[in-house]
Amino acid sequence: MSGHMIEDRLQELNITLPAASQPAAKYANFVIVGDLMYVSGKGPSGNPKGKLGIDYTTEQGYAFARETALEVLAVLQSALGSLDKVKRAVKVQGFVNASAAFEEHHKVLNGFSDLLLEVFGDKGLHARSVFGAVSVRDNLPIIVDTIFQIET
Amino acid sequence: MSGHMIEDRLQELNITLPAASQPAAKYANFVIVGDLMYVSGKGPSGNPKGKLGIDYTTEQGYAFARETALEVLAVLQSALGSLDKVKRAVKVQGFVNASAAFEEHHKVLNGFSDLLLEVFGDKGLHARSVFGAVSVRDNLPIIVDTIFQIET
Amino acid sequence: MSGHMIEDRLQELNITLPAASQPAAKYANFVIVGDLMYVSGKGPSGNPKGKLGIDYTTEQGYAFARETALEVLAVLQSALGSLDKVKRAVKVQGFVNASAAFEEHHKVLNGFSDLLLEVFGDKGLHARSVFGAVSVRDNLPIIVDTIFQIET
Repeated sequence: MSGHMIEDRLQELNITLPAASQPAAKYANFVIVGDLMYVSGKGPSGNPKGKLGIDYTTEQGYAFARETALEVLAVLQSALGSLDKVKRAVKVQGFVNASAAFEEHHKVLNGFSDLLLEVFGDKGLHARSVFGAVSVRDNLPIIVDTIFQIET
Repeated sequence: MSGHMIEDRLQELNITLPAASQPAAKYANFVIVGDLMYVSGKGPSGNPKGKLGIDYTTEQGYAFARETALEVLAVLQSALGSLDKVKRAVKVQGFVNASAAFEEHHKVLNGFSDLLLEVFGDKGLHARSVFGAVSVRDNLPIIVDTIFQIET
Repeated sequence: MSGHMIEDRLQELNITLPAASQPAAKYANFVIVGDLMYVSGKGPSGNPKGKLGIDYTTEQGYAFARETALEVLAVLQSALGSLDKVKRAVKVQGFVNASAAFEEHHKVLNGFSDLLLEVFGDKGLHARSVFGAVSVRDNLPIIVDTIFQIET
């Protein structure tokens, strides 16, 4: 027991967060303005390379999106001290590195959304959108942009 | 006369809103934080399929973008009770399912912007951007992300 | 000496801002809500045409991203009277008009980020993400979306 509700929930779910990754270039991992926290775009752990519809199946994409959510949670925890400081997920925008014929972007991003709901419950429910990117830095399969409301 | 100014304006314009569509996956149709309402990405009614520059002309894309605006208004009306609660449109981000050679994304998104201006007048004026997506869920021709300021 | 700190800094850096460009269609150059300023998507000056990974090198893309930052600063200065009114850069989202094989989107957007840091110092540090667009209006090589916090 950590004394933190969400961290306890992570333990129940057998989820271990990675260390918060550092920005890929000269920008911040996050910016807090008022009670909104804008997190920089994150991808899955270990820098996998490839496109949905070509190199990866939708199921593999789902797993990458889930991993990406863990990367985002790692940034939140590192920035806020505890995930209990998250009041709610606000907006999730997913960019899937995809072929022109791919049509299951929403099923891929569900890996991200499901993880937020498992960890945060109703506070994890968010507005969302998802699109196909013709290419992504380092050929990552997905990058996700997020906004959270936090306790200040 | 509905007693609501914007709903009366819709009637004058002979616009009937569709029923608010439900999210395509496990997320919310919208999230309100402070006086900002983040609406999940919406596409045109009836789930048309195809790409601008390949399957559809710019004029058809304009019509799809206009329909998409009606889908967004339907979410706002369902969530807020009346469109009179909208203080202003803030940000519109359009993602056009397009070929690599397409160059008229802005003319497509004008269908969305024009509808907001017709319905809301000056309150419908918004910051905007538009991009070509290599592919979109269910091969929709366009998805639009929006942020509105609302009365709280 | 202009009496404005950031404008003086621009002079030291030998940077002359262009005139604020007008929207490419029926939307606003920016919307201010609370202390957040949403700036419409901007591209580099002079309407260059072409894709990264096909028509332009990463170095050329970096220069285009830097020019795009000047276009955004021109909008801020025109709207606010002085760049001293900028409290901080919040979020930068870059869309690079790119080939399917391009992998250096982040190095391109560094041209934008570096300029913000040079001009604003720590206040220029921002959350960020960048994606490959299959096509962009008028075949511009990059469009950047931004949110700033301003003094009200």
